[in-house]
Amino acid sequence: MKSRAAVAFEAGQPLQVVEIDVEPPRAGEVLVKIDATGVCHTDAFTLSGDDPEGVFPAVLGHEGAGVVVEVGEGVTSLKPGDHVIPLYTAECGECKFCKSGKTNLCSSVRATQGKGLMPDGTTRFSYNGQPIYHYMGTSTFSEYTVVAEVSLAKINPEAPSEKVCLLGCGVTTGIGAVHNTAKVKEGDTVAVFGLGGIGLAVIQGAVQAKAGRIIAIDTNPGKFELAKSMGATDCVNPKDHDKPIQEVIVEMTDGGVDFSFECIGNVNVMRAALECCHKGWGESVIIGVAGAGQEISTRPFQLVTGRVWRGSAFGGVKGRSQLPGMVEQAMSGEIDLDPFITHEMPLERINEAFDLMHEGKSIRTVIRY
Amino acid sequence: MKSRAAVAFEAGQPLQVVEIDVEPPRAGEVLVKIDATGVCHTDAFTLSGDDPEGVFPAVLGHEGAGVVVEVGEGVTSLKPGDHVIPLYTAECGECKFCKSGKTNLCSSVRATQGKGLMPDGTTRFSYNGQPIYHYMGTSTFSEYTVVAEVSLAKINPEAPSEKVCLLGCGVTTGIGAVHNTAKVKEGDTVAVFGLGGIGLAVIQGAVQAKAGRIIAIDTNPGKFELAKSMGATDCVNPKDHDKPIQEVIVEMTDGGVDFSFECIGNVNVMRAALECCHKGWGESVIIGVAGAGQEISTRPFQLVTGRVWRGSAFGGVKGRSQLPGMVEQAMSGEIDLDPFITHEMPLERINEAFDLMHEGKSIRTVIRY
Repeated sequence: MKSRAAVAFEAGQPLQVVEIDVEPPRAGEVLVKIDATGVCHTDAFTLSGDDPEGVFPAVLGHEGAGVVVEVGEGVTSLKPGDHVIPLYTAECGECKFCKSGKTNLCSSVRATQGKGLMPDGTTRFSYNGQPIYHYMGTSTFSEYTVVAEVSLAKINPEAPSEKVCLLGCGVTTGIGAVHNTAKVKEGDTVAVFGLGGIGLAVIQGAVQAKAGRIIAIDTNPGKFELAKSMGATDCVNPKDHDKPIQEVIVEMTDGGVDFSFECIGNVNVMRAALECCHKGWGESVIIGVAGAGQEISTRPFQLVTGRVWRGSAFGGVKGRSQLPGMVEQAMSGEIDLDPFITHEMPLERINEAFDLMHEGKSIRTVIRY
Repeated sequence: MKSRAAVAFEAGQPLQVVEIDVEPPRAGEVLVKIDATGVCHTDAFTLSGDDPEGVFPAVLGHEGAGVVVEVGEGVTSLKPGDHVIPLYTAECGECKFCKSGKTNLCSSVRATQGKGLMPDGTTRFSYNGQPIYHYMGTSTFSEYTVVAEVSLAKINPEAPSEKVCLLGCGVTTGIGAVHNTAKVKEGDTVAVFGLGGIGLAVIQGAVQAKAGRIIAIDTNPGKFELAKSMGATDCVNPKDHDKPIQEVIVEMTDGGVDFSFECIGNVNVMRAALECCHKGWGESVIIGVAGAGQEISTRPFQLVTGRVWRGSAFGGVKGRSQLPGMVEQAMSGEIDLDPFITHEMPLERINEAFDLMHEGKSIRTVIRY
């Protein structure tokens, strides 16, 4: 079938909205009509060419919501008409990781997903007869996309796609990192580095956890008003200080924070986020994705004196079992998605969404098909 | 009073056994007659001159056991005749750290201890009228030493000093890191890097925790027999392999270990220890002390995909409240100190103990006064 799609033909070039061909779903696969998709920094990161797993041409996009159109052979958990959110972190329930009970990092489709292919090693997309790669197992920048059954969370059909699509990545990642990875408790002091969609979601999660103090850090003070309205108690611009930001935070907090979150992908900020943690117990969670080959470093004394360095992917959330509940929370108001959606536009203007993001003018632009 | 002591007059030079002057204990201080002391790599590290906190001349030594001789003004928890283990990690019960319930890193005497001084900022040791510095708040290389009350654990007077002195550092550090920091559980797979006293204590702790597999790693295969006799299930010499040791361990364990422990103080090994952990849940604990200015590094992807990097000091053990119980365990055989004691000698031969350690020929030499 034909589908409108924004295709990344080459690294570093704008997307091109064209009509591609989409093959029917094969065994274990599902054809989904995407209603809405967010545009995330990870899409931009891959488009830039810095992502070592990036392959081109590809249909990017990984923060979508839509409706099942057709299911392939053997698909039992979904049927046409079901509302779904595609998952870049699958949940098969069968692999060593799913069975461990310790992680959400399902390995079932990981190998092929990382190569831009469906689990059988082929692609369902083509343009003028040339194959086009998938992306993160989701490819939500195509109106019609094919996704593995294990990579789809079935959600409440009443949920508004143009909002809950954000639970496909950024908001879930930030809120989940607070609850599942860090396990922030009432009264804790929290530092959030980077006030994009994920950083703001961390703030929302910290408010839910009743954190006592939420320190928001960004070099763009234009983000502070929204951060405060969402619950940040302090906003700090590193550019306003001569000393390293970790020292500023340690002084502000009489020894450091209980938890810090790096929501940028900058290895120097990751170090600062660790080192602003309180001696004896402070924990830092890396959420941002750094460029290929970049490394974090610190003195081991930072860890020997009780700080903990960890990371979080998709907020530690198991997509098929936990995301439906988060959709319900968004419908009941426990999770507020409205502040994240600063822009909406049709697919044809998707490159504007990337521009707004690069200029720091948007939190999330939602593309509606 | 006069006291025999092994004094480090200069960095990089052998200790000199001389008769020093020891002043009486002041308020909050206790005079202790040391019966026995271990010689630990940390003493050698400071003696080498690489320790940024090292000051000279000093009385080193931090792994001792002895008897209270005299108490200073205001000391209420100890009296002459009490058997004690000096603590380089104090436990005051009053500071922010002690009250947190989250760490053993008491801050009460930290500032002066790090400068080689008693809490009032002076020293009790002198030689020919020249002041000599304290070390780690313990200075167990003097037959008579002065220690802060908060830095002494009162232990069972029946406990053999020449054995339980090892609970003053190495054995407690290793066993404690397994139980308090990592929280190893039955069936877990554990990797131990470095088979000195701490590494062997980690093996003993892992056996207590009923770890399913205990992989011991050292470049000196002469250590493997003892490691196996203590419970290591596999011994690996990195020199026997062409590929990085983390890859070797990941292959041996079908994905990596649940917990790893770095017991050397080598920043490259710290990286290997992290990277041999299982994706999704593996945790690495840094115990070794690296040289001044050295840094650990890795790709942040290691953490984002679920590995955790932490550290441990004195095994997370609160000395005054928990060490007496460990002494009881040593007396009942739950902790076996005998395998650690490879040599015993009098104070006069203490430089031989350093030589044996540097040559990898000893685990612990116990000095008996």
